[in-house]
Amino acid sequence: MSTGNDNASAEERIGNLGIELPSSPIPLGAYVEAVQTGNLLFLSGTLPIENGIARFQGRLGGGLTVDDGREATRLAALNALAAAREHLGSLDEVSRVVRLAVSLVTSPDFTQHAKVADGASELLLSVFGKDRIPTRMVYGTASLPAGVCAVTELVLEVRNTAAL
Amino acid sequence: MSTGNDNASAEERIGNLGIELPSSPIPLGAYVEAVQTGNLLFLSGTLPIENGIARFQGRLGGGLTVDDGREATRLAALNALAAAREHLGSLDEVSRVVRLAVSLVTSPDFTQHAKVADGASELLLSVFGKDRIPTRMVYGTASLPAGVCAVTELVLEVRNTAAL
Amino acid sequence: MSTGNDNASAEERIGNLGIELPSSPIPLGAYVEAVQTGNLLFLSGTLPIENGIARFQGRLGGGLTVDDGREATRLAALNALAAAREHLGSLDEVSRVVRLAVSLVTSPDFTQHAKVADGASELLLSVFGKDRIPTRMVYGTASLPAGVCAVTELVLEVRNTAAL
Repeated sequence: MSTGNDNASAEERIGNLGIELPSSPIPLGAYVEAVQTGNLLFLSGTLPIENGIARFQGRLGGGLTVDDGREATRLAALNALAAAREHLGSLDEVSRVVRLAVSLVTSPDFTQHAKVADGASELLLSVFGKDRIPTRMVYGTASLPAGVCAVTELVLEVRNTAAL
Repeated sequence: MSTGNDNASAEERIGNLGIELPSSPIPLGAYVEAVQTGNLLFLSGTLPIENGIARFQGRLGGGLTVDDGREATRLAALNALAAAREHLGSLDEVSRVVRLAVSLVTSPDFTQHAKVADGASELLLSVFGKDRIPTRMVYGTASLPAGVCAVTELVLEVRNTAAL
Repeated sequence: MSTGNDNASAEERIGNLGIELPSSPIPLGAYVEAVQTGNLLFLSGTLPIENGIARFQGRLGGGLTVDDGREATRLAALNALAAAREHLGSLDEVSRVVRLAVSLVTSPDFTQHAKVADGASELLLSVFGKDRIPTRMVYGTASLPAGVCAVTELVLEVRNTAAL
């Protein structure tokens, strides 16, 4: 099945595209990675972590380039998908991506937030297809945990309702 | 019908107040402006854009005044209402404004966030009435897309449930 | 009943731990402290306010320590719980804490966000128990209202549905 097939499921697309999800992120404190309420799955902020190592540390517009930032937001979003799969069993349970928030560490004069955030957005598009892409919020921060340049935060709509 | 009539609908109030909504914002990347899930409508972050031009670029407390910021958050919120109307057909579908987040670009010592955010909040009050105003979150960022000083993000409750 | 009893209710735990909630925060502008939609209760951002005074003003990593920050996020979260109790009548109406967002004012090289945010997270753990703790998002800002170093924002799941 080609990756261009809009009828492919999220898990099929991940297989077709050869995307490998990292292991699910481990909370850095007294919180959990995912909470479902009704049909909404809230995920914690996820960092660009690969094999347990925080990557892309530094500042966009001050050492790190737009391309670095695109890779960082993509990797952070992959960690979010890993957390979602861990909670749901399969990403095919996701009926819609509702909201993507992207926090970036930037120099004061940085303006390329949209291009950097597209690293995460284009991943979501390729996995869930154009009918399931989310709203987006992106902003520049003073600092992020572990010195990384990007954190992503997702809200997903899922097929099965959680009982209260 | 006077604008002071609490029974006026949102669209009636907009007409009475002579408020003109801008055209609905155009996504700057691989995302959409609005996603409805159940009775919640999530909107993307919206910028102070007028006639396709990003206005109020700069930093509050460093070139831009509190009054500039108030106009900027009002204009950003008008863009959010335009996106909501585009999605819903009419703002009369909005039963409650749930959450307003306001991101501002500020100097390090800026403390007038509440006054600046009231530019957006007072618009929502005038359009939806005092029984429908939202919670609020406001903070100072290092930078925002396109160099603007303010971005708003809204979550709305709407009358008609979206099917999964 | 010991505080280690997982069957204790939130209000019982607060009593057992001797936690005193501050008075509910007063909005700093045209917004409200809490909005319920369905089973979700959204709260406004809350500051580390005690007896009407904003405490912990300054910057983490530049004058304020990690321990200051932990106290600040705990106090901000106590204000959020006060707002929730004011709205719900009792914190025993909370079936789950869904999302905790923590905004911190930091120096550019600050990396101890997780430790600071745990001031709020550990409070929520002690009040609601380990089965009800939320997802978390934490980031460094340029500035926050009233010059405080921390603001918390909560989304709660509550037992009784609000009618539209």
